[in-house]
Amino acid sequence: MTSFTTLESLRAACRDLPAGSDDAAAAVAARQTQLTKPPGSLGRLEDIAAWLARWQGRATPALDTIAILIFAGNHGVTAQGVSPYPSSVTAQMVANFSAGGAAINQIAAVAGASLRVVPLALDRPTRDFTQAAAMDETEFLDAVSTGYGSVPRDADLVCLGEMGIGNTTAAAAIAAALFGGGGPRWAGRGTGIDDAGLARKRRAIDAGLAQHAALVGDPLSLAMALGGRELAAILGATLAARRLGIPVLLDGFICTAAAAPLALLKPGALDHTMLAHVSAEAGHRALADVLGLQPLLDLGMRLGEGSAAALAVPLLRAALACHTGMATFAEAAVDNRE
Amino acid sequence: MTSFTTLESLRAACRDLPAGSDDAAAAVAARQTQLTKPPGSLGRLEDIAAWLARWQGRATPALDTIAILIFAGNHGVTAQGVSPYPSSVTAQMVANFSAGGAAINQIAAVAGASLRVVPLALDRPTRDFTQAAAMDETEFLDAVSTGYGSVPRDADLVCLGEMGIGNTTAAAAIAAALFGGGGPRWAGRGTGIDDAGLARKRRAIDAGLAQHAALVGDPLSLAMALGGRELAAILGATLAARRLGIPVLLDGFICTAAAAPLALLKPGALDHTMLAHVSAEAGHRALADVLGLQPLLDLGMRLGEGSAAALAVPLLRAALACHTGMATFAEAAVDNRE
Repeated sequence: MTSFTTLESLRAACRDLPAGSDDAAAAVAARQTQLTKPPGSLGRLEDIAAWLARWQGRATPALDTIAILIFAGNHGVTAQGVSPYPSSVTAQMVANFSAGGAAINQIAAVAGASLRVVPLALDRPTRDFTQAAAMDETEFLDAVSTGYGSVPRDADLVCLGEMGIGNTTAAAAIAAALFGGGGPRWAGRGTGIDDAGLARKRRAIDAGLAQHAALVGDPLSLAMALGGRELAAILGATLAARRLGIPVLLDGFICTAAAAPLALLKPGALDHTMLAHVSAEAGHRALADVLGLQPLLDLGMRLGEGSAAALAVPLLRAALACHTGMATFAEAAVDNRE
Repeated sequence: MTSFTTLESLRAACRDLPAGSDDAAAAVAARQTQLTKPPGSLGRLEDIAAWLARWQGRATPALDTIAILIFAGNHGVTAQGVSPYPSSVTAQMVANFSAGGAAINQIAAVAGASLRVVPLALDRPTRDFTQAAAMDETEFLDAVSTGYGSVPRDADLVCLGEMGIGNTTAAAAIAAALFGGGGPRWAGRGTGIDDAGLARKRRAIDAGLAQHAALVGDPLSLAMALGGRELAAILGATLAARRLGIPVLLDGFICTAAAAPLALLKPGALDHTMLAHVSAEAGHRALADVLGLQPLLDLGMRLGEGSAAALAVPLLRAALACHTGMATFAEAAVDNRE
């Protein structure tokens, strides 16, 4: 199992990324022009087929094995009153995932995807980032390595999600540190904080940015100081998927912020990902825009858990089914354009 | 089987619509607040569950039987050079649907929905609406009645789609006649007409509007004069579904234009429908806006065939699965908001 023992070795891995297969993507594009439909009329479904081919490295991609990975962590910054829910809910929701009672369980079943929940030291919350680094280097690298090792080698697609009371605050802090704008640009209402709580959240983010200002320009150190274990694990899983040739569906704001440091370490590092959904969480559209991610769905969701990533799976299945199952003009004896 | 023999009897049926069940929708909304998620965090999935309940008239809706209906027709207005494909393609694509080679066949399989194709007198195209009424009253009412009778009484959901070379021109003409703005507002590139063809299409629409100007204000007569058999059938099917208590997913521009006369005959007549997707076809977003329809998807598709309606089915399945399958806070022993 790959285990990162220094920030430098992780940084090096983040910069040593395989390219996708131009040949596979070109083969898909060529076949698309022969299928019984006007050119381009399947819109993004055609892009999805080519993207799966490019990042699976084969002209006929597959979606036989789809793994949803949910990482869970707890956050010391909840001491700042940034969530309407108590931290106890993180472990309770992990139990709910295991019992099959959460939204993601139902959506995973519709998607035909397996679900694995990875709790990360829930009894040891990160430190309050307004006071100290959320994680030390060992804690951060352990979480990244756990995420990295969680990606099944035989998966055709990985959907990433998270659970962690307080983690929209950590995500907003990372986004602010990476892309500027402070708490007001990136803080949203998360699970539904009221106006006073939103003000506390913005102040906490700004305090964290001030506390760790010296790290600006070092994406991994910012993820360590401001993030959380589940966010670090998502970073690790996104990196592993790229290196294993597995496309990734990113979920919501937290998931996107967790993966964002990769994009700053290496241009194109998120090209093997698609953003499943643009969340109702305030900062997500701006974050998607700055990363050049075009969401597949826009349904006002803001739940996390990988729920939107799983919800987008049938779109990928449909794209693949059209690509592999449709007849060509010649096969169907349909007249092409005059 | 319901058969409309006069425009007046059809108009009366269009104005005699059952309401949805407020009680069923309220029961869904009440349960949603107890499920293990922050209030509102499933966004439109929560609305979908309530909408299914309202229009199926039961607090626990079902999606066991989903029927995709594709209506196909041919159009005399193709004489004006409005499509890059020959009219022969309509029947050829009907054969392709039957053989399982079209996009909708693949997407229907992903959606777990049955597919029925209803060709409507393909060897007798409508008349060129720039010269005469596309259909006489008997032809129009026959097509409406066929659509009406095509809706299976046991369906939990109906997805409507169409196939017909030239039918974006008919759809744009109906939209222009109902909502104003002429050819330039509503004509798009359809299956991919070039600039010269688009200019011809706009002129044909404006010529049709001039030819049938006396009918403005009479939605059914406009649908008869400017539309087509497959559009009339979609109108009939949408009406039948409402009267049978079956929610409807509308597909793209043509499908929406076909159902639009209902909204003008009776406010709220399309409340039992959801728009699956906003098409890349130029006039669709404007038409959705004027009808107050919020599309579920926006993926740049412009194929028709019911493809986008079928693509949206898994979103409805996920919404229903969450509503029926999730644990409540009490059941899962998850702490609610502080």
